[in-house]
Amino acid sequence: MNGAEVLLRALVDSGVEVCFANPGTSEMHLVSAMGRTDRMRPILCLFEGVATGAADGYGRMADKPAATLLHVGCGFSNGMANLHNAKKAHSPVVNIVGDHATYHQAYDAPLATDVPAHARICSDWVRVSESAGDLAASGGSAVKAAMAGNGKIATLVVPADHAWEPAGASTSKPDFDPPGRVAEESVKKLAGLIRQGKRTGLVLGGRALRETALVAAGRIAEATGADLLCETFPARLQRGAGRVTVNRIPYFAEKGAAFLEKYEQLILVGGKTPVAFFAYPGKPSLLAPDTCAIETLATVDEDAAAALEDLADALGAGGNPVRRKLLRDVSRPEGRLTPETIGQSLCRLLPENAVVVDEAITCSQPIYTASEGAASHDWLAITGGSIGFGLPVALGASVACPDRKVVALQADGSALYTQQALWSMARERSDVTVVLLNNDSYAILNIELARVGAGKPNGKTLSMFDLGNPAVDWVALSQSLGVPAVRTETAVAFDRQLETALKTKGPRLIEAVVPVSLERIFG
Amino acid sequence: MNGAEVLLRALVDSGVEVCFANPGTSEMHLVSAMGRTDRMRPILCLFEGVATGAADGYGRMADKPAATLLHVGCGFSNGMANLHNAKKAHSPVVNIVGDHATYHQAYDAPLATDVPAHARICSDWVRVSESAGDLAASGGSAVKAAMAGNGKIATLVVPADHAWEPAGASTSKPDFDPPGRVAEESVKKLAGLIRQGKRTGLVLGGRALRETALVAAGRIAEATGADLLCETFPARLQRGAGRVTVNRIPYFAEKGAAFLEKYEQLILVGGKTPVAFFAYPGKPSLLAPDTCAIETLATVDEDAAAALEDLADALGAGGNPVRRKLLRDVSRPEGRLTPETIGQSLCRLLPENAVVVDEAITCSQPIYTASEGAASHDWLAITGGSIGFGLPVALGASVACPDRKVVALQADGSALYTQQALWSMARERSDVTVVLLNNDSYAILNIELARVGAGKPNGKTLSMFDLGNPAVDWVALSQSLGVPAVRTETAVAFDRQLETALKTKGPRLIEAVVPVSLERIFG
Repeated sequence: MNGAEVLLRALVDSGVEVCFANPGTSEMHLVSAMGRTDRMRPILCLFEGVATGAADGYGRMADKPAATLLHVGCGFSNGMANLHNAKKAHSPVVNIVGDHATYHQAYDAPLATDVPAHARICSDWVRVSESAGDLAASGGSAVKAAMAGNGKIATLVVPADHAWEPAGASTSKPDFDPPGRVAEESVKKLAGLIRQGKRTGLVLGGRALRETALVAAGRIAEATGADLLCETFPARLQRGAGRVTVNRIPYFAEKGAAFLEKYEQLILVGGKTPVAFFAYPGKPSLLAPDTCAIETLATVDEDAAAALEDLADALGAGGNPVRRKLLRDVSRPEGRLTPETIGQSLCRLLPENAVVVDEAITCSQPIYTASEGAASHDWLAITGGSIGFGLPVALGASVACPDRKVVALQADGSALYTQQALWSMARERSDVTVVLLNNDSYAILNIELARVGAGKPNGKTLSMFDLGNPAVDWVALSQSLGVPAVRTETAVAFDRQLETALKTKGPRLIEAVVPVSLERIFG
Repeated sequence: MNGAEVLLRALVDSGVEVCFANPGTSEMHLVSAMGRTDRMRPILCLFEGVATGAADGYGRMADKPAATLLHVGCGFSNGMANLHNAKKAHSPVVNIVGDHATYHQAYDAPLATDVPAHARICSDWVRVSESAGDLAASGGSAVKAAMAGNGKIATLVVPADHAWEPAGASTSKPDFDPPGRVAEESVKKLAGLIRQGKRTGLVLGGRALRETALVAAGRIAEATGADLLCETFPARLQRGAGRVTVNRIPYFAEKGAAFLEKYEQLILVGGKTPVAFFAYPGKPSLLAPDTCAIETLATVDEDAAAALEDLADALGAGGNPVRRKLLRDVSRPEGRLTPETIGQSLCRLLPENAVVVDEAITCSQPIYTASEGAASHDWLAITGGSIGFGLPVALGASVACPDRKVVALQADGSALYTQQALWSMARERSDVTVVLLNNDSYAILNIELARVGAGKPNGKTLSMFDLGNPAVDWVALSQSLGVPAVRTETAVAFDRQLETALKTKGPRLIEAVVPVSLERIFG
């Protein structure tokens, strides 16, 4: 066996089943090895940002890593934006990055790059293999590193000669470390703090937003009056009918500050201290008031569900929290198509156990709110704020959960960073319904422009956020990449198309025309 | 004035006229400042790799920098692959990258990134502004850094508070350093080496491939019998009818080695020691034989034209070298559409002074060869080997040279990395004819797979290079982004469409169906 073959075997033996691949010449032996086994499913992506975003979506849903296969530093850099999001989501991901053969690296060939320097920027763990024989252990270590805590980004750099040289027949199957348990004293201390009667919010993030943890959090809320707060961009929030309700911290700094104003203490459970997404002149970076104490029950890498259960027990909380009701009986929306009516349709029609990927940007909040009573589902948000995450993450989520319907709520401007994901969806027959929210603009930037105090914009300034010249033909674009598509301009038309799409297996795109009102933004 | 305004003024006063922009919230004050002046043309790009590639194309043709406007580390990372190509092309580029406000950087907000760490990977010069007042000087310094030598990548990181805080009304207009002159003794020494009668090749790169330098090189060739060799991927080669002929060093390592086998000395003039693009098992990295001496007349940052003229004079060379003849009278091609017939059509039809951007990959060499006798034109190649360069560079070249026809020879697989450039071409009404070479595959990877000795591939392996499932509808894709398009499958149909496109102003895409033969590759 050569190095590529033992690496592949180590990945497979460690539980990796899927590889989102965009290889080049230095990865040919890995491609060849993947071609000769049934134990790894290679999924070709036409751009590296699709591969890394798909690995993020896969990791969020499978709680174990997919591999990516990337080509030298330049290929890796194309995948960095979505690795940034994956890292902020605490997704487990294993990147395999080919590099020039070791002896070739001295010659400054055209594609010579400092691959480890790239990798360090958005990885938690980086290793460069030292020989072909090293690749079995390195592959296992990479998976182990990716499985640490909630999930980590592990990047293994493989010089081409290590892939092609003989490597024996070794493999590696690491033991994974379970997430750390929160100490009893910590739980007791926090129970004491909650009992003091201060106005308390639990800031839930990471796996504290999964069903079991939410039930425990809901017991605490019922017993103590503490509020359950959800980080603004959850990696995976289990919500909808039958689930315990959480309140998301608003995106805009001043709204977030107003939302948190009343709290005397915030207890972090897999979440972080709430901060503004961006700084704005004269507005605070920290959203909680100065007088609010910030305590930690569990970091994102600790076992949040167990910690919450322990805390609920320590507080003597009862068995069952309030759960959200199913709101299936909302009427079919009529009239103008808006984010609100889209949320209403989603609430009516979303099948049980769906996965919703939210890169709806300015349309997100109304859809989120209107769909709170939909059948239970998972909601995946843009954790790192780097746009172009939605379509790739939807692809990866669908690969991880082929029996669940995936709905991608996708803003038009952001979609244009990684629209190549549509092609992989068509190729893999992914069961994804893309709701393409078309406002022909970077609507969020109009809003941000109004907020940063840069003065009233003129036509030239506004043209820099205008995607209507020319208008993108989304139906043609989607179909050109193999995904059937339809355009809707009324609430009824959208509702009908969504109903059909959600009942039909396979990828489909519904363009939802939701014009943005500049008057409303700039007055 | 605020920091954004003084920065913009410094850029404009230093000669920057164009900004390829993909901004976010932290760049709003710069966007607003650009909206309020007529002296900077902002060109909206839908993806950062389009912005940086366009700046590369602009820099190659204008010999001065365009600016890019990018959003924090994630936005920068999306532009890194084409900055890699720009750096290898020695293009002048000024990147302006917004970052979080300085006081906000401590809070690890979702989009917090180490922008300078990103920038250092693919920039020659990096600075983080220290205050709003600092931005005038920093802007001037960035342009000066970009104009050093042949051209450099300069990246200025601007925290948002520096952009929005008051900055007085200062500006900065740097003096640029001209490229270094090669010392008389060096010229004399090399004249002596050439006179010894060894079999000599001049390895021409950078500005040694511009017309004036080529004439001087041609005089040397005529007088001494030295051969004029061209680096494999020239940033900008002035060729065609009336121009001095050069021979490109072949791409594949064994062909490059065979090509260079006969030389006893190579003299570098803006070019580098020839090395293999990739390493292959058992093949050499250095292409010239061990016995071949490597000497340097001029580095890429020195004045190659002056050095060649001095050398020609030192050798007593005559006035006029042999120039290539116009081959306009080649017949219209018939029958099957192939890279060869496409080259023949180009040779027949290319207008005087066109710019050809070559990301034709496997189709490149036959088109290049067949078009050697076309009307004089500039040929821009993929200097750094990072794919997705062609459409953005064509956009930027057209912005730099609005009165010249730009022809982008674009392979399908590579096009799918930065196809968003088509939208900016439509928006800017760029006079670009895209020849989309569609073989429904990563054909080069099939060839590389055969070459790296990874064994005979099976269907599963080959599927990883197959872009035919689903087949991309290039006409629909192009039209969806605003660029009229047509599909051609015969040599005659392509020739007719090319004739029309080259006579018509504005962007247009011609899909050329050129199936790849796996039998020919794998036998």
